[in-house]
Amino acid sequence: MKFYQYSISLNKPRGFHLITDLVVRATTHLNSVSVGMMQVFIQHTSASLTINENADPTVRKDFETFFNKMVPSDFPDFIHTYEGLDDMPAHLKSSILGSSVQIPINNGELCLGTWQGIYFCEHRDFGGNRNLIITIWGN
Amino acid sequence: MKFYQYSISLNKPRGFHLITDLVVRATTHLNSVSVGMMQVFIQHTSASLTINENADPTVRKDFETFFNKMVPSDFPDFIHTYEGLDDMPAHLKSSILGSSVQIPINNGELCLGTWQGIYFCEHRDFGGNRNLIITIWGN
Amino acid sequence: MKFYQYSISLNKPRGFHLITDLVVRATTHLNSVSVGMMQVFIQHTSASLTINENADPTVRKDFETFFNKMVPSDFPDFIHTYEGLDDMPAHLKSSILGSSVQIPINNGELCLGTWQGIYFCEHRDFGGNRNLIITIWGN
Repeated sequence: MKFYQYSISLNKPRGFHLITDLVVRATTHLNSVSVGMMQVFIQHTSASLTINENADPTVRKDFETFFNKMVPSDFPDFIHTYEGLDDMPAHLKSSILGSSVQIPINNGELCLGTWQGIYFCEHRDFGGNRNLIITIWGN
Repeated sequence: MKFYQYSISLNKPRGFHLITDLVVRATTHLNSVSVGMMQVFIQHTSASLTINENADPTVRKDFETFFNKMVPSDFPDFIHTYEGLDDMPAHLKSSILGSSVQIPINNGELCLGTWQGIYFCEHRDFGGNRNLIITIWGN
Repeated sequence: MKFYQYSISLNKPRGFHLITDLVVRATTHLNSVSVGMMQVFIQHTSASLTINENADPTVRKDFETFFNKMVPSDFPDFIHTYEGLDDMPAHLKSSILGSSVQIPINNGELCLGTWQGIYFCEHRDFGGNRNLIITIWGN
């Protein structure tokens, strides 16, 4: 069985960003896997990963707008506030969206649907560098 | 190591649907895996998968009611609206719930708890056909 | 390929609990995996697992406060109420957060970021014993 692991680093402004191409370029052994699985994992708790629409950038804008409304930075009952008003909402969004995505591999390619892409979701105002671990395995 | 992949297609009305039996029937090599893992992946961005209570249908009704309240179709700040009022909420619900579930396999069976079932979550009014990729691997 | 599976049982009060050390102690073959993956799966539908900040306990308190506000027990439209007011919110939180986490393994250790820990999230007032299945695989 094949098992490969890669590490990449990102630095993006707050918001939702399409990173499918970046991930595929980093997984240099992807085309040697005939049936398998890919996981992308983010090593942080105030940024996250998800899969969503890869075409219209307004979808990603609406994600940012909606999540800011759903998890408001002025929620009056937060007690973990000393790292900034954007910190606790970032932790919550990170767990709601998740810290990894798993995508099946077939014939050396990701089995993404036509409209699916991988989103990197930066929830902090100044998140800095973010490390991602990509793991692929299969036959 | 064994690696098997299956593809199934669904067409269900908007709402939350139990698909455990359908998934198990499709994975014809499940009983040959002694220790392993199953992933079910949906190739769409306005429908999703999750694991929840497999017994009382009112739970699935309450899921639909609650998610419609949590992600309202009349949210005034959405800008991605040209695909219908049910489209942007469907994208958001899809990322909140997730596009895959992973379930351990032991002795040829899924390690689901007594009350656990796999939900297929159709978030659009007329979602049409939805493709699922099921992958199992193990020894 | 190596494939190991472990089962552990937990009984914790309602709230968010850090269980990284417990999980690592249970996976006795972890240090024999050079490149691989770990999954932790919870066999229940009113408790969940997520990854978040492992340092300040106020983060976990804010998780409990915020999720109780986001999924209120007095939501007037719930029809699945006969198992108690904390039951339906527990099912919803469970699907929003998810029933499993997957963490890459490198050189016999989990690839968690500095601030990442595994949370066990008990959403019921009296959840009782909860079973977790931990699976690791790799080379």
